[in-house]
Amino acid sequence: MSLLLDNQFTELPPDKSVDTKIFLEAVSHLPSFFDCLGSTVFSVIKSDINGNIMKITAVYNKDPAKYATLQDILEAEREAHAAEWPKVGATLALMWLKRGLRFIQILLQSLADGERDENNPNLIKVNVTKAYEQALKKYHGWLVQKIFNAALIAAPYKSNFLKALSKGEEVKEEDCLANVRQFLVNYTATVDAIYEMYTNLNAELDYTV
Amino acid sequence: MSLLLDNQFTELPPDKSVDTKIFLEAVSHLPSFFDCLGSTVFSVIKSDINGNIMKITAVYNKDPAKYATLQDILEAEREAHAAEWPKVGATLALMWLKRGLRFIQILLQSLADGERDENNPNLIKVNVTKAYEQALKKYHGWLVQKIFNAALIAAPYKSNFLKALSKGEEVKEEDCLANVRQFLVNYTATVDAIYEMYTNLNAELDYTV
Ligand SMILES: CCCCCCCCCCCCC/C=C/[C@@H](O)[C@H](CO[C@@H]1O[C@H](CO)[C@H](O)[C@H](OS(=O)(=O)O)[C@H]1O)NC(=O)CCCCCCCCCCC
Ligand SMILES: CCCCCCCCCCCCC/C=C/[C@@H](O)[C@H](CO[C@@H]1O[C@H](CO)[C@H](O)[C@H](OS(=O)(=O)O)[C@H]1O)NC(=O)CCCCCCCCCCC
Repeated sequence: MSLLLDNQFTELPPDKSVDTKIFLEAVSHLPSFFDCLGSTVFSVIKSDINGNIMKITAVYNKDPAKYATLQDILEAEREAHAAEWPKVGATLALMWLKRGLRFIQILLQSLADGERDENNPNLIKVNVTKAYEQALKKYHGWLVQKIFNAALIAAPYKSNFLKALSKGEEVKEEDCLANVRQFLVNYTATVDAIYEMYTNLNAELDYTV
Repeated sequence: MSLLLDNQFTELPPDKSVDTKIFLEAVSHLPSFFDCLGSTVFSVIKSDINGNIMKITAVYNKDPAKYATLQDILEAEREAHAAEWPKVGATLALMWLKRGLRFIQILLQSLADGERDENNPNLIKVNVTKAYEQALKKYHGWLVQKIFNAALIAAPYKSNFLKALSKGEEVKEEDCLANVRQFLVNYTATVDAIYEMYTNLNAELDYTV
């Protein structure tokens, strides 16, 4: 489970503010998550998420002190780009990034909870579909939804997916899932905090692509 | 037709060598071609092609004199990366880029030649499918082919596509197609020369993605 445990998210402070630098460092390891899905088709998603991270990083690097927390970034951009905000800059990049993070969270949670298709216990289709429906579907037009359904066929077997998460090491499924559960604690708290921030700042949009 | 005529390819010299700098400049305007297709779905293709161009540009910039022609690049990389070549560096990027260029060429040629579905004269599906089959299909596994078929539904009407090529100006279809024909002269010669070079250097691969 190295991929996840080597790159743990840290515990949030009581005010639930997310430190930009720590967040960017933790999240920079996640795009390789999509390599675990196997097919080159998913490299498209990997580069979309990579693009989000690069955009936020570029803003942060312009003035690390000013952009110390993710909320600092949103507030500064709201000020600087009143007309277009929130469909602009790192605010937009993080809006989409958090949906990809939520997708990963729900997928892993569903696996950790043992949700499965009893007729096909080694398929993750049911878990991937749940994650997609809750995190992304409503932001996708019918064409992208249709493409998702096609791409689903390329989803790996559960055993191979868990093995890839463990960087190819032979780990017992139960040990792997225990690691997933541990990873999910701080990870879920961070994703939740970002969603809450978008709600509080009224920064969420629901246009479809 | 500004998009094409503003960014003409230049005539090749008699030895058909392709000047790297001139090529990169001409080709840098092509990714916006995919904006003419309308749907955001095609931005995925745009970034794939953009990635190819950036990779070739990065190699060129390391030593413009050494990499004066595209053939110089392939030969230098064959020397430097004997084991992996041609699946490496700018050689790989150009291998894929030329397929995207060929796709555009065949699509435009087919429109210029007046090929159409008599029952749906304002659809470009028949032209796009021809371009796909000749330029790309054999390098795509069945999943990507399936996704292509889904994406095809997002192809624009011919009239809107030609208008977008003319940067939104109202141009008569015949004038627009005359411009396409003019653009295609040097463009096709350049793409042909690159294909010939890959054949001559034995640099072509046919793995699928
Ligand atoms: C030759 C044939 C070719 C045919 C072409 C077909 C191409 C098909 C493309 C399908 C879509 C691929 C997924 C990418 C979708 C993206 O369009 C969306 C929005 O992307 C956002 O858009 C914003 C502007 O609106 C900004 O540019 C953001 O960029 S910014 O940083 O500049 O602000 C950008 O992330 N991201 C998303 O929906 C996020 C996706 C996360 C995915 C999570 C996992 C799903 C896993 C599924 C597993 C089964
Ligand atoms: C949430 C749901 C999400 C589900 C996810 C679904 C995602 C679906 C993705 C579909 C594929 C999109 C097209 C991209 C395909 C690319 O995979 C291929 C190979 O791409 C090459 O790969 C190499 C390594 O093998 C290097 O990395 C090259 O990169 S390197 O520079 O690093 O060397 C790279 O270009 N390029 C291609 O096939 C080229 C495509 C040109 C397209 C031309 C026009 C087609 C127009 C069609 C109009 C109807």
